[in-house]
Amino acid sequence: MTDLTQIEKRDLLYKGKAKEMFTTNDPDIMWVHYMDQVTAFNGKKKVQMAGKGQTNCEISALIFTDLAKHGIENHFIKQLDANNQLVKRVKIIPLETVVRNFASGSFEKRFAVKHLLKFDKPITEFYYKSDELDDPFINDFEVEALKIATEDQMNQIRAIALMVNNRLKEIFDKMAIDLVDFKVEIGIDRDGKLILADEISPDSCRLVDRKTKKSLDKDVFRKGLGELVPVYKELLGRLEKVEGVN
Amino acid sequence: MTDLTQIEKRDLLYKGKAKEMFTTNDPDIMWVHYMDQVTAFNGKKKVQMAGKGQTNCEISALIFTDLAKHGIENHFIKQLDANNQLVKRVKIIPLETVVRNFASGSFEKRFAVKHLLKFDKPITEFYYKSDELDDPFINDFEVEALKIATEDQMNQIRAIALMVNNRLKEIFDKMAIDLVDFKVEIGIDRDGKLILADEISPDSCRLVDRKTKKSLDKDVFRKGLGELVPVYKELLGRLEKVEGVN
Ligand SMILES: Nc1ncnc2c1ncn2[C@@H]1O[C@H](COP(=O)(O)OP(=O)(O)O)[C@@H](O)[C@H]1O
Ligand SMILES: Nc1ncnc2c1ncn2[C@@H]1O[C@H](COP(=O)(O)OP(=O)(O)O)[C@@H](O)[C@H]1O
Ligand SMILES: [Mg+2]
Ligand SMILES: [Mg+2]
Repeated sequence: MTDLTQIEKRDLLYKGKAKEMFTTNDPDIMWVHYMDQVTAFNGKKKVQMAGKGQTNCEISALIFTDLAKHGIENHFIKQLDANNQLVKRVKIIPLETVVRNFASGSFEKRFAVKHLLKFDKPITEFYYKSDELDDPFINDFEVEALKIATEDQMNQIRAIALMVNNRLKEIFDKMAIDLVDFKVEIGIDRDGKLILADEISPDSCRLVDRKTKKSLDKDVFRKGLGELVPVYKELLGRLEKVEGVN
Repeated sequence: MTDLTQIEKRDLLYKGKAKEMFTTNDPDIMWVHYMDQVTAFNGKKKVQMAGKGQTNCEISALIFTDLAKHGIENHFIKQLDANNQLVKRVKIIPLETVVRNFASGSFEKRFAVKHLLKFDKPITEFYYKSDELDDPFINDFEVEALKIATEDQMNQIRAIALMVNNRLKEIFDKMAIDLVDFKVEIGIDRDGKLILADEISPDSCRLVDRKTKKSLDKDVFRKGLGELVPVYKELLGRLEKVEGVN
């Protein structure tokens, strides 16, 4: 691996809805720039917001560092400055893996169940990551038929997602927050190993304060409940106080 | 079991979109009346059609009889007359199990794949049978969480559905018809055994004539491609000519 102080940003490889991904002078390292932008409903709602990129970048860095300490291998390498970090380049498997501990969002709507119904065991779901198709819900047999992933890979992905869930629940428990659900993306690194990639932030989690019952996540933006960045900053502040995470 | 000649129709237990289910003087036997009605899009499109009930009733009777001969236990007991049959009463597991050999319908739309793309292996899918919820697509973890069925039951259901697929493919092969996809419902009989129930008919299958490429199923109605009953009658005629089925 290149000496990390020598890493230089090269070409913009992909500009997504929340991040820009740049190549670097090391083919195995990507430069991630967290943008001051928030989107919802597959990009149909989009707003620029000062401070949003930085907060997510820092939250994701803290969480990925903690997960690595707890044995969950991931792409995070180094925080560069407020909005930028270095990560291992992976081949993303185009599945958004959702873990649900309580009913909310599309689940609640699809099955008309009580908001925040608690599940006996976490539920996992796959969505096929495709902006054009609107990230359709997909089952294992369809994933295989469309050659998106193998059965073995799906089982590995679920195992990683559930390990992440266990550790995240521990962290948020210490913050008196319920982890309602979250989404992860898994990639294949250059050794062929499946590792956690992308980000874990209030953009990709649903978090509810146990005392106030308030959302501390992108639902604030989706539902127009108020200013988003102060909420994300509050979350970051609380996260930084958790022993072991900081 | 009551002497079948002594069975009497009692109360209407359930009037569905295609059939009326009556109790009888035997608590384990139901009287099914196939109505002259066809619906699509969860009942939003609905038309009365003379001869439709009879054709479906006869097709389903032929297929269930054949499946039983091929070791696939099912609810069918006896054809009474054109529109009526006796079946074993079961507790329906509220899952519509879909088997797909080629892409069509909601699959084709959801994943924007080529019409009639052939899959290497059949795909199975579960839909939660609920008119109010519009039969939402559901995965195994959700089925378990909502206590709709156990993991073991889901595996048994899939095994039955795939056995049905194998035999149906053999039958339709002899008729020069591609079995694109179909839906089954499975119920629990009074011994606690999972058996095939409901109906298998052109209402619940997608069938494409290999030579003419024409649909021989409810897609004729869904897409307004012409008169439905003559198509169903043609199918019945061809089915009756298959050796072993008649
Ligand atoms: N380590 C990685 N290597 C390569 N690609 C990654 C890595 N981590 C995340 N990605 C991908 O980079 C993009 C991140 O930008 P984002 O704004 O989240 O995109 P999107 O709008 O597609 O969600 C996503 O497509 C994500 O799958
Ligand atoms: N053997 C059986 N015992 C009890 N219920 C059955 C059996 N076979 C089918 N059913 C149920 O009877 C109803 C059949 O009527 P149908 O018109 O197909 O209803 P729907 O509009 O709900 O599809 C369905 O709800 C089906 O699940
Ligand atoms: Mg993203
Ligand atoms: Mg029905």
